Amino acid sequence: MTELNVALIGYKFMGRAHSNAYRQVGPVMSPSLQPRMKVLCGRDAAAVGEAAGQLGWEESATDWREVVERDDIHLVDISTPGDSHAEIAIAAAKAGKAILCEKPLANTVEDAKAMLSAVETAGVVHMLCHNYRRIPAVMLAKQMIEAGDLGEIYHYRGTYLQDWVVDPELPLLWRFRKDKAGSGALGDIASHSLDLARFLVGEIAQISGELETFITERPLLDDATKKGRVSVDDAAIALVRFDNGALGTIEGTRLALGRKNYNRFEINGSKGSLAFDLERMNELEVYLESDPPARRGFRKILVTEPEHHPYIASWWPPGHIIGYEHTFVHTVYDLLTAIERGTAPRPNFEDGVRNQKVLAAWERSAESRRWEKV
Amino acid sequence: MTELNVALIGYKFMGRAHSNAYRQVGPVMSPSLQPRMKVLCGRDAAAVGEAAGQLGWEESATDWREVVERDDIHLVDISTPGDSHAEIAIAAAKAGKAILCEKPLANTVEDAKAMLSAVETAGVVHMLCHNYRRIPAVMLAKQMIEAGDLGEIYHYRGTYLQDWVVDPELPLLWRFRKDKAGSGALGDIASHSLDLARFLVGEIAQISGELETFITERPLLDDATKKGRVSVDDAAIALVRFDNGALGTIEGTRLALGRKNYNRFEINGSKGSLAFDLERMNELEVYLESDPPARRGFRKILVTEPEHHPYIASWWPPGHIIGYEHTFVHTVYDLLTAIERGTAPRPNFEDGVRNQKVLAAWERSAESRRWEKV
Amino acid sequence: MTELNVALIGYKFMGRAHSNAYRQVGPVMSPSLQPRMKVLCGRDAAAVGEAAGQLGWEESATDWREVVERDDIHLVDISTPGDSHAEIAIAAAKAGKAILCEKPLANTVEDAKAMLSAVETAGVVHMLCHNYRRIPAVMLAKQMIEAGDLGEIYHYRGTYLQDWVVDPELPLLWRFRKDKAGSGALGDIASHSLDLARFLVGEIAQISGELETFITERPLLDDATKKGRVSVDDAAIALVRFDNGALGTIEGTRLALGRKNYNRFEINGSKGSLAFDLERMNELEVYLESDPPARRGFRKILVTEPEHHPYIASWWPPGHIIGYEHTFVHTVYDLLTAIERGTAPRPNFEDGVRNQKVLAAWERSAESRRWEKV
Amino acid sequence: MTELNVALIGYKFMGRAHSNAYRQVGPVMSPSLQPRMKVLCGRDAAAVGEAAGQLGWEESATDWREVVERDDIHLVDISTPGDSHAEIAIAAAKAGKAILCEKPLANTVEDAKAMLSAVETAGVVHMLCHNYRRIPAVMLAKQMIEAGDLGEIYHYRGTYLQDWVVDPELPLLWRFRKDKAGSGALGDIASHSLDLARFLVGEIAQISGELETFITERPLLDDATKKGRVSVDDAAIALVRFDNGALGTIEGTRLALGRKNYNRFEINGSKGSLAFDLERMNELEVYLESDPPARRGFRKILVTEPEHHPYIASWWPPGHIIGYEHTFVHTVYDLLTAIERGTAPRPNFEDGVRNQKVLAAWERSAESRRWEKV
Repeated sequence: MTELNVALIGYKFMGRAHSNAYRQVGPVMSPSLQPRMKVLCGRDAAAVGEAAGQLGWEESATDWREVVERDDIHLVDISTPGDSHAEIAIAAAKAGKAILCEKPLANTVEDAKAMLSAVETAGVVHMLCHNYRRIPAVMLAKQMIEAGDLGEIYHYRGTYLQDWVVDPELPLLWRFRKDKAGSGALGDIASHSLDLARFLVGEIAQISGELETFITERPLLDDATKKGRVSVDDAAIALVRFDNGALGTIEGTRLALGRKNYNRFEINGSKGSLAFDLERMNELEVYLESDPPARRGFRKILVTEPEHHPYIASWWPPGHIIGYEHTFVHTVYDLLTAIERGTAPRPNFEDGVRNQKVLAAWERSAESRRWEKV
Repeated sequence: MTELNVALIGYKFMGRAHSNAYRQVGPVMSPSLQPRMKVLCGRDAAAVGEAAGQLGWEESATDWREVVERDDIHLVDISTPGDSHAEIAIAAAKAGKAILCEKPLANTVEDAKAMLSAVETAGVVHMLCHNYRRIPAVMLAKQMIEAGDLGEIYHYRGTYLQDWVVDPELPLLWRFRKDKAGSGALGDIASHSLDLARFLVGEIAQISGELETFITERPLLDDATKKGRVSVDDAAIALVRFDNGALGTIEGTRLALGRKNYNRFEINGSKGSLAFDLERMNELEVYLESDPPARRGFRKILVTEPEHHPYIASWWPPGHIIGYEHTFVHTVYDLLTAIERGTAPRPNFEDGVRNQKVLAAWERSAESRRWEKV
Repeated sequence: MTELNVALIGYKFMGRAHSNAYRQVGPVMSPSLQPRMKVLCGRDAAAVGEAAGQLGWEESATDWREVVERDDIHLVDISTPGDSHAEIAIAAAKAGKAILCEKPLANTVEDAKAMLSAVETAGVVHMLCHNYRRIPAVMLAKQMIEAGDLGEIYHYRGTYLQDWVVDPELPLLWRFRKDKAGSGALGDIASHSLDLARFLVGEIAQISGELETFITERPLLDDATKKGRVSVDDAAIALVRFDNGALGTIEGTRLALGRKNYNRFEINGSKGSLAFDLERMNELEVYLESDPPARRGFRKILVTEPEHHPYIASWWPPGHIIGYEHTFVHTVYDLLTAIERGTAPRPNFEDGVRNQKVLAAWERSAESRRWEKV
Repeated sequence: MTELNVALIGYKFMGRAHSNAYRQVGPVMSPSLQPRMKVLCGRDAAAVGEAAGQLGWEESATDWREVVERDDIHLVDISTPGDSHAEIAIAAAKAGKAILCEKPLANTVEDAKAMLSAVETAGVVHMLCHNYRRIPAVMLAKQMIEAGDLGEIYHYRGTYLQDWVVDPELPLLWRFRKDKAGSGALGDIASHSLDLARFLVGEIAQISGELETFITERPLLDDATKKGRVSVDDAAIALVRFDNGALGTIEGTRLALGRKNYNRFEINGSKGSLAFDLERMNELEVYLESDPPARRGFRKILVTEPEHHPYIASWWPPGHIIGYEHTFVHTVYDLLTAIERGTAPRPNFEDGVRNQKVLAAWERSAESRRWEKV
């Protein structure tokens, strides 16, 4: 096999980002195993047809069940909202397909576990798309931590701040409804900071979490003269304790004016510190105690060196920065490489289950008003 | 009275900073009521004598009890470690002196309450020295919030990060002993972030706090071959809920390598955001939703405009920055002005009691593993 | 015509960047007129064949003369080194093709003028690829200046700093040879800063320029034991005077360690200032005197708002930054739109002539040691 | 001698800054030789009397000639406008006094030379107050360059940007008149950047300079309905060539809106780079090629480490920043130390002559429109 036929379910924001990845990974990164953009699947035949044409898919389809069972499909990419992930993934697993599933893996721990069970039973390749792990600066952070540059980790300080819900006249979109979205800032963005915490620091043992909905009512989508109740959080904060003893704070909010995509973390260890901000995603700030005393300081590494930094060799010369969608290209590249080599890509569905367990403990803690074990 | 005779108790770090303030306030800020640096008080006669000479005091003394009762003393400034504040302040109050007390007001809520009771009973002027309130950028933040520029406050995000204890060979100083210091990062630095939270956002209703001591043993001061137990925290993190409903996270740690004096806060409201960092204390970052959409962004205000920014008229032209010790000069100036005008300076001992109550609730929460009311 | 057949001459760094633009402009920006990636042309048949396959071209070819005369080619894109631009462009013009030519238009003013004459005689569409004009932050700067936000312009301060030649063991590449490259830092990078100056401030009237070659010899490519002479500058600095009276400084150097792609400019006018840095190309710093006095400061606009900022509507939500190669996508989009609408795209070959005249005056000035008129 | 009696001539901005230095150097830095603030001298008896009282001087006087000849005066500090420096300094030298002279040494090369000759003939201690050399971050830069951390220097890029003259209604102050001020932005602020260039990189051999007056008329001080001509530059830009071959650009302007005191420089050498900005004067940015390739970046050194950074041991713990006026305290400390030890302080009057020669060459070049030798 030198081509991998892909079916992508979903064609909105994430569908566009994943399509871009399949379109770009070949020309840019030259994987041995090339993806073939076979079919784009969505419920609205006209819209998905148009999207398929624009985004570069050979066909479009409206019935995901048929699609995931097609013999000529090798990889099913699930880019729909979270409440539909389980059903699609389990069917794809049963059909023996490799699966790339957009985060969150599911809206509940139960669904997530069922999905993990399905892929393990079927023995198919499974990968969770937490694309921020594949930012070169984040991967460099991972390499530095693994190399021991930070020593013992004491602190993780993660915030994912946005501001898009601050206008109370913004209507009651599906993202404000618990039945559709599962949760609000918690699952949408705090989950990213949480996944990075697990990736970089380790598993989370306990959590004390709080949730809040500051704007409790919004105009209905179909009748702006009436209001409906917002049933998800718009802000989520937590203290966490890692298995290795490190302390953490994690926050996700959609009400931090001026912060557009401020997925920032800082990690402090016994030998050094590092900090990252998604709005300046080509940079990593690093402080090393091993520098000479008079010359210590946070250095801003521009993570764009083709010879020295992860993924950059496929892109441009030093200082020619990359953007948001490149993280999906890297994700797909690593997935293709894993499939070709027969290795297991990460993060996978087990990571999805673990992430979901932390989110569930966060919600339990917000109810119980006490620390909860994950 | 055109001169106010001052007795300063304590001559180490805080004693030096307060001395500087009394020395500088006249030449720089020309208060109507001038301080006279009458007597510096400490336990070691030789050392305090030398310090008095160097720092500009007329006399030195070793018995604070005698000093606070001297007829020619009008203001007692308490710059000793926290465990001695109560005894000195109560005696000074009984002697009818105005009092400026370095933070923390006391090491316990009980002591703090007794001090408040004493000054109220005596009817003397009392002020707590939380000098960071008097940074021009912080005072500008206060003005903006009071003017409604931020609208309803949703978030306070405060961190005070330092790194001076990261070396495990640093000996067991008094700051590592609970009997002397009361607590570690909690009372020393998290308390600053907490006081700023109260100053800028409002009273704190509930808290979920955690404390940790990562480095549990240190070499003894008098015998480095032996180790003693560290009995205070070196890191403290908390979630807080304000009376007005806002959410907050507060952290103090002495183990954040590279952060030397990183007293940073960010506040998000329904109309704007602002951020501050003590390491760049002449700057305030401000985001205003009222700016035109295409031109919104965090602006970095250099808070050094003599005509427009608090306290700056006494200093230098625009862009000529001021430093750490200037905050004490402003504090003393405001105290002198209040005494002359017969107004009540803030923060005062009641603020000290309130701060101490939050710290106590933080400690209770770390024990109970649940949210505690303040 | 709903498809425009493109022939791209050149497949190295610029060839890759332009290929990416043709590949991405359709799926991302949906122009009415779509490009068709017809043929990629280069001298090495095997290499260009492989590149065509990887980069998404239908065919490859080795003889650019044949290619530019093919009836089925509508647009010729010239991405070869500067010394070949004139010959190819003139041939393409004679063949009636629209032309997109990578900067510099040519290595000499004479060649540039001949090219301009050819396209004007032939009446074909001609565009010069100075892609940095199409960075959203730069285009926003242009909009603000045109709207009068900066008032009368006093200063342009442009630097394009890189560091890739600092190692004296780097061999004598073609970029170090005047016969191939025309000049060094001058034409390669200072020319970008110069074009932005013309775009944002206006035409340059006079210049006092200096050139230097700090590393004068380098190992030969084919025999590293021998050295050859570097015949181009590695650093170029200049004072400029604009037609409108504004003063400017422009610098390009390849010897600024740590600056990877530091194409930075600052512009000061009677009502405001703005600053930009290519290494943080999603940001524009803006200072407006019209802000209230106490709240003035440089604001960092994150130029990623789909509803408010140029080009962004085609990309991602706020705060999801874009990268270097996106500037070429925008360039191609604007070219396609101009062709479809029958308007004249900018910058064009006349801009190329003007840019080249400034560079020539810079070189004359470095010889004459005095100011030279452009 | 353990006390040095000081006479300060001038009591405005610089007089205040120097007074502060004499007042603070003892308590803060404990020099062996202590200054005694003997007499403050100015033309307006009432005003100088009041200033003396406020700023801490024992006496005031109006006749500088008498003052500099008083037997009980050891050091004459000249903080008047530049046109009076020569007369005072020559008289003080003849009277055998040590002299600290505020920059610029004089308004002309001739005056500067006469002053140098006078102090050399008299054999008195002479120092020029270029206080920015004594910023800890600048002194650290000097140490790093001398230690060879930057290798061979290629580039100096200095800008001193302010914006206080941007309002055309600002009246015709003495600083806008050539007879009083000598020049405008050139001598006032570009001269600082120039002195730092000489301090850090070396002597300047040649210069191509330009001067401009954008706002040519201003309201008269005594009759705002009439306007008078501005006879000094408000902007000055130059290319420079150092003796050691390095290239430089230097700019001073009072028309860069938003830049309040932006005395910034960047230096690039064969092994590293460093950058500094007076508005963040506690920081030095450093890039070292000797760092591991994947971890290189500009590090922001917070130059506040008592054990490792110049002058800081006298101030506060790490991260507790210092301000503008501290640079004068350091200057006075170094002068006192030099006097006590019998060594020659720097910069001295010879530096003043050299600085003035560069400024004169800059003006000649602006006339001749060509490079001029210094």
